[in-house]
Amino acid sequence: MSRFLRTEYQPLKAYVPGEQPRDMAYIKLNTNESPYPPAPEVLSAITQNEVALLRLYSDPTCLVLRQKLAALHGLNADQIFLSNGSDEALSFLFMAYSEKGAAFADITYGFYPIYARLYGAQAKVIPLEEDFTLDPEKYFGQEGLIVIANPNAPTGLCISLSQMESILQANPDTVVAIDEAYVDFGGESALALLDRYENLLVVRTFSKSRCFAGGRLGYIMGAPALIADLEKLRCSTNPFNIDRLALVLGEATVDADEYYQEKCREIITTRDATAKALEALGLQVIPSQTNFLFVHAGSIGGESMYLALKKRGILVRHFTKERIKDFNRITIGTQEEMQTMISKIKEILL
Amino acid sequence: MSRFLRTEYQPLKAYVPGEQPRDMAYIKLNTNESPYPPAPEVLSAITQNEVALLRLYSDPTCLVLRQKLAALHGLNADQIFLSNGSDEALSFLFMAYSEKGAAFADITYGFYPIYARLYGAQAKVIPLEEDFTLDPEKYFGQEGLIVIANPNAPTGLCISLSQMESILQANPDTVVAIDEAYVDFGGESALALLDRYENLLVVRTFSKSRCFAGGRLGYIMGAPALIADLEKLRCSTNPFNIDRLALVLGEATVDADEYYQEKCREIITTRDATAKALEALGLQVIPSQTNFLFVHAGSIGGESMYLALKKRGILVRHFTKERIKDFNRITIGTQEEMQTMISKIKEILL
Repeated sequence: MSRFLRTEYQPLKAYVPGEQPRDMAYIKLNTNESPYPPAPEVLSAITQNEVALLRLYSDPTCLVLRQKLAALHGLNADQIFLSNGSDEALSFLFMAYSEKGAAFADITYGFYPIYARLYGAQAKVIPLEEDFTLDPEKYFGQEGLIVIANPNAPTGLCISLSQMESILQANPDTVVAIDEAYVDFGGESALALLDRYENLLVVRTFSKSRCFAGGRLGYIMGAPALIADLEKLRCSTNPFNIDRLALVLGEATVDADEYYQEKCREIITTRDATAKALEALGLQVIPSQTNFLFVHAGSIGGESMYLALKKRGILVRHFTKERIKDFNRITIGTQEEMQTMISKIKEILL
Repeated sequence: MSRFLRTEYQPLKAYVPGEQPRDMAYIKLNTNESPYPPAPEVLSAITQNEVALLRLYSDPTCLVLRQKLAALHGLNADQIFLSNGSDEALSFLFMAYSEKGAAFADITYGFYPIYARLYGAQAKVIPLEEDFTLDPEKYFGQEGLIVIANPNAPTGLCISLSQMESILQANPDTVVAIDEAYVDFGGESALALLDRYENLLVVRTFSKSRCFAGGRLGYIMGAPALIADLEKLRCSTNPFNIDRLALVLGEATVDADEYYQEKCREIITTRDATAKALEALGLQVIPSQTNFLFVHAGSIGGESMYLALKKRGILVRHFTKERIKDFNRITIGTQEEMQTMISKIKEILL
């Protein structure tokens, strides 16, 4: 760090993404990526001509992709804010709406408290219940911004549509953002409430269910006035944040929606079988509506399990936070990868 | 705009990029894009396998591309900060260093005052001289951040290495950023001063000379401590801001450096011939070290010239700012495009 950096950013600690070690080939179950490639139509969407066109700027309004997403969700294009991955979308959310504070759970996506600090927002950290469920009433009467990951990570648990609605009704002057990164693997979407609540924003990503983590596309759906706020901030920082190839691939992705729905069904099937197999080993598995499982390590402890799996070529995500230090978050890979993972855990528990 | 938006952003006006009208096919000379495609090796760099890998996150450290850029410039990788286009790099610059204010010229890249407002920095706007040259002494004793586009846009004029050094010497406690978006078309680079000034940052983009405006890559070179500041901010907003394909294409671009140098020479030749031809029509042309010309419209006026050219299928950039309203900024295209442009101006002036 230099002596020149703005005072408020000096104590800041950046987000640490899941590790990407290169010392050996791992079965990578630590960042909730899809085990499947993008749809065939997406794989063939990039021609040399598309690459040649990179000499020209992209459409800063991303109009075609926004129109396609709007059609997919039964909305208008002015209800769609497109971003370079949903992390960037969340960053703009905190930038725009956290003046009076930002409320989120103690056990949830680890980036929320970093955004709060970055934008000088007072963080209201609301503990989940003992069983990791979320009590909506604890979110009543919050100011500024409420962010709820639904399904939640790393727990995999959901709140219901009526619980979301109770939070929206109790906070008409607060922006309520539902981060639906994992909604395609289960749970109810807040989209059904969009036409009734001007303070609701729904955040989505192409990274998980659209097999596009390395391509960077996320979006927010909401009332046109909120979308216009976010657009103003985006166009005041980097109006061409979404490149030409991401737009071409994103459009092909929306067109191939059926392929991705099928892959989600496969992941759900693999997930449920994996959960059963782990429970049969005597491990506690939190019921998951996502593409990962949150698994108690038993008597061996969370960190030891993580290290023992890593030694055996399997990367999972361990968090050092006290409440969850005996768990690991395990991404659902292919059936074969899950069988390997289960057999390694068996070996470790012996 | 919504009633929820943070108070400080309510009066903000976003940057307006050059227009991209779709009503007819234009010769597009309004956003300083290259008329040439990326190098052949870049065109063939994207295989279906690369697209399949988009299911996985990119390397958030962008290590290989940073190493290649470091080697190109005789630096170490920890002196390179990579960004999603140089607009994003500039945004992080203002975010990091403008606590005590930000100084820049009155006639320069129109995004600087927007960043200053976005990050709540007091803007010190320093007028260029009557002939659009920059007097370095007016930058002595500034606090916070100094940003100088060199060569400058939209004028095309440069300051010398010794002028840059005088500014660095006079402001040891201020970050001095030299925005070298156009340096490959002429002018001296501040890179030669990097090992002697810990407060110097040099900003580059792939958008102009690397024919990559739609692919989004920019970078900043400077002392490791400053680069670490910027990395902390990047990783606190969107650590995967540079996607996998941009990394692959960026690496191929650096490898094909000779191709781009050749294209720059072609553009310089076309530029100088175009300037002569416009002067032969009696128009004042500011001597340019960039891939554009800043051309006085003569008695017809800048806006009329812009509109008359647009009617004839040629887009140039007109700025309404009082000091430069009689000029247009004209990107250097192919020789054929320039001949068409010149013949249309001849027609308009008749």
